[in-house]
Amino acid sequence: MQIIEDSLDQLLKQVAIRTNAVANREEVEKSVREIIANVIKDGDQAVKMYEQKFDNVELESLKVTQREIDDAYEATDDTVIKALELAKANITSFHQMEVEDSFIDAKKKGVIRGEKIAPLAAVGLYVPGGTAAYPSSILMNVIPAKIAGVSRIVMVTPPQKDGLNKAVLAAAKIAGVDEIYTVGGAQAIASLAYGTETVPRVDKITGPGNVFVATAKKQVFGQVDIDMIAGPSEIGVIAGSQAVPSQVAADLLSQAEHDKLARPILVTDDRSLAEAVSKEMDRQVDLLPRKEIAKAAMENEGFIAVVDDIDDAFTLMNAVAPEHLEVQLPDAIEYLNQIKNAGSVFLGFSASEPLGDYLAGPNHILPTGGTARFFSPLGVQDFVKRTQFVSYTRDALKKEKDAITTLARVEGLEAHARAIESRFDD
Amino acid sequence: MQIIEDSLDQLLKQVAIRTNAVANREEVEKSVREIIANVIKDGDQAVKMYEQKFDNVELESLKVTQREIDDAYEATDDTVIKALELAKANITSFHQMEVEDSFIDAKKKGVIRGEKIAPLAAVGLYVPGGTAAYPSSILMNVIPAKIAGVSRIVMVTPPQKDGLNKAVLAAAKIAGVDEIYTVGGAQAIASLAYGTETVPRVDKITGPGNVFVATAKKQVFGQVDIDMIAGPSEIGVIAGSQAVPSQVAADLLSQAEHDKLARPILVTDDRSLAEAVSKEMDRQVDLLPRKEIAKAAMENEGFIAVVDDIDDAFTLMNAVAPEHLEVQLPDAIEYLNQIKNAGSVFLGFSASEPLGDYLAGPNHILPTGGTARFFSPLGVQDFVKRTQFVSYTRDALKKEKDAITTLARVEGLEAHARAIESRFDD
Repeated sequence: MQIIEDSLDQLLKQVAIRTNAVANREEVEKSVREIIANVIKDGDQAVKMYEQKFDNVELESLKVTQREIDDAYEATDDTVIKALELAKANITSFHQMEVEDSFIDAKKKGVIRGEKIAPLAAVGLYVPGGTAAYPSSILMNVIPAKIAGVSRIVMVTPPQKDGLNKAVLAAAKIAGVDEIYTVGGAQAIASLAYGTETVPRVDKITGPGNVFVATAKKQVFGQVDIDMIAGPSEIGVIAGSQAVPSQVAADLLSQAEHDKLARPILVTDDRSLAEAVSKEMDRQVDLLPRKEIAKAAMENEGFIAVVDDIDDAFTLMNAVAPEHLEVQLPDAIEYLNQIKNAGSVFLGFSASEPLGDYLAGPNHILPTGGTARFFSPLGVQDFVKRTQFVSYTRDALKKEKDAITTLARVEGLEAHARAIESRFDD
Repeated sequence: MQIIEDSLDQLLKQVAIRTNAVANREEVEKSVREIIANVIKDGDQAVKMYEQKFDNVELESLKVTQREIDDAYEATDDTVIKALELAKANITSFHQMEVEDSFIDAKKKGVIRGEKIAPLAAVGLYVPGGTAAYPSSILMNVIPAKIAGVSRIVMVTPPQKDGLNKAVLAAAKIAGVDEIYTVGGAQAIASLAYGTETVPRVDKITGPGNVFVATAKKQVFGQVDIDMIAGPSEIGVIAGSQAVPSQVAADLLSQAEHDKLARPILVTDDRSLAEAVSKEMDRQVDLLPRKEIAKAAMENEGFIAVVDDIDDAFTLMNAVAPEHLEVQLPDAIEYLNQIKNAGSVFLGFSASEPLGDYLAGPNHILPTGGTARFFSPLGVQDFVKRTQFVSYTRDALKKEKDAITTLARVEGLEAHARAIESRFDD
């Protein structure tokens, strides 16, 4: 990968250019708008028409039977089932710590105030087809929803000529998906947002997908809630002289193999480490089945920045706001305070990023493209809603009556003032 | 208002038609796209050009001086300042209960897992101009951000020929806004999302606005985070025979006066209450300064539904998912469990909705248009982000190594497996 050695200011400028590149795709927007309108109008019939058109599949029924799911589970290798079960246990124990409590406050005489936290009623999970159908992502989407208490979890995934991926169906069974439909693309998102005769309308749609899926999610936002729009995978590694080049290189490649636009970034204060990692990546990448993808990512988006000291490395990484951040430094946990923007953080020499993709328990559905500035990993919090409530006695209201009517009248909202005063007309 | 008496099924169908009406405004989308592109390209110059074009104001400087803010505060009536201070105290004590804690878990040998909650660095608040500039909304937006720990709170508001609303500036000072710019419309949203020479780029934009503002917020979503897209105000009242018709009518009118598309809804099991409230509304509405608006809302969107029993009233109201819900029944708090979808709930005969608009402490920025199904009131949670972290020793990683590499290879991600194995090459 390209090694850049420059002042922090110059590096920050380069990073800013990279993260601001967001394409505006008017044509895609238009055809997605049309697909959504047709699914609203014609329901299942429109969905089947689009499946024929885009996936070249003639569907009789959209629903995957319990039998198909059970058969796929039986056909899945036992070591895979066991690995999925271990992952489920770790993901569950981590996400249980995210559960928020309702609260109630009765400190003031005659006044009750509170906030009730309740699960969404139904959520939809989009699972891409082909090689991007990841069993691990099903666990990451479904388990937090289950812990939140969502009672209807609906999965959609494009039909596949040779049948659905068996490990995906096994993971859906293990995670506790309630129903599965073979619908893909924008038509799947439209179905979940508005409902068809077969596919139920849900309250929130999560899961990654291609540009049509992402655009459709953005368009239905407001009709339903959505998770963030996922971009290409990113890994940032901050490493000092004690890091092992072959391990740093392997970790960078683990994300580079995802996508030609994936972004592997190393920031180090050690020029010789930079060179050793670069050399190791060139050596290792040729041994990978997905070497073409990984090489493209290294060339398109990857870089190694050499900075003056480790504080600069954190400043630069905070500007990148990477999806994954490894801190390969001694006593890595002590840097937690310096990490401002990152989705998921891997501390120390042994916390290799794929540990988080599969097993440690934190979520792997994470903010990308610099959005870790404001977005968070998918979690239990994404599958609940809050409802606030107040109760005032007439005496309690009387004490605050004048303040309310004063503010209402300053805002020119006379009926607001009168609603309060109507309690004291007699 | 129209009184409907029908089966629950028929009522649910009518409600479904109402809530699904979402207009698609392609022209607005296009001109907003252009405004955003120009603000990205030309910064302040584009902003000033649009302010001249749309607001007919030639701006030298975009920034409101501290002097202007202090003068407005001094010029604001003392009773208003005191009412704002009381509101601030109640809003603060309520929102402090929303604060979430970071967590760390060290139950397993060699494994540390946790989630760090941190404030967003900078947020932008849009305040509409004219009569829709509400001091109370500034408190509702800013106080949760302050409690979350946001260090830079930026307000934007369209320039006004006769100067900015003094009570709005006073509220900004009381709430603790850090800087104010006179920019409105889509150009204001673009400025906050991308930054100009004068207006800083923020991480999240909140606050209501017209269709241009709402469309711009939707378009910049992903570049920054946004709060929900606000629609016309709604009030649902569930009332039994013990409710006082004049009070129910006054409460319904308090939201009807907001907007010609506001939606006042009463659901009752008492036909005679329905008739009395309808009569009272007709009488009271004529006494209001904003009677034209309130009458239009009553006609366009308002209705009174008479149902067989109170359980049906909750079923119907849950389908509406109103922004505000009053429960005017004895022992109202006992119905909390039956309320599935509502933004803010007012329990009992004295909890009149404007109490929540101004003073009780819960937020008044609430989900509308049926989105209470999945959106929540604005809160402290909206101004933080979560970062997850893990640390594993080599021994701890060794125990889970095989499960990770098994899952990586099932997904065809060889480089993921090798990253883990690179720790055990020796």
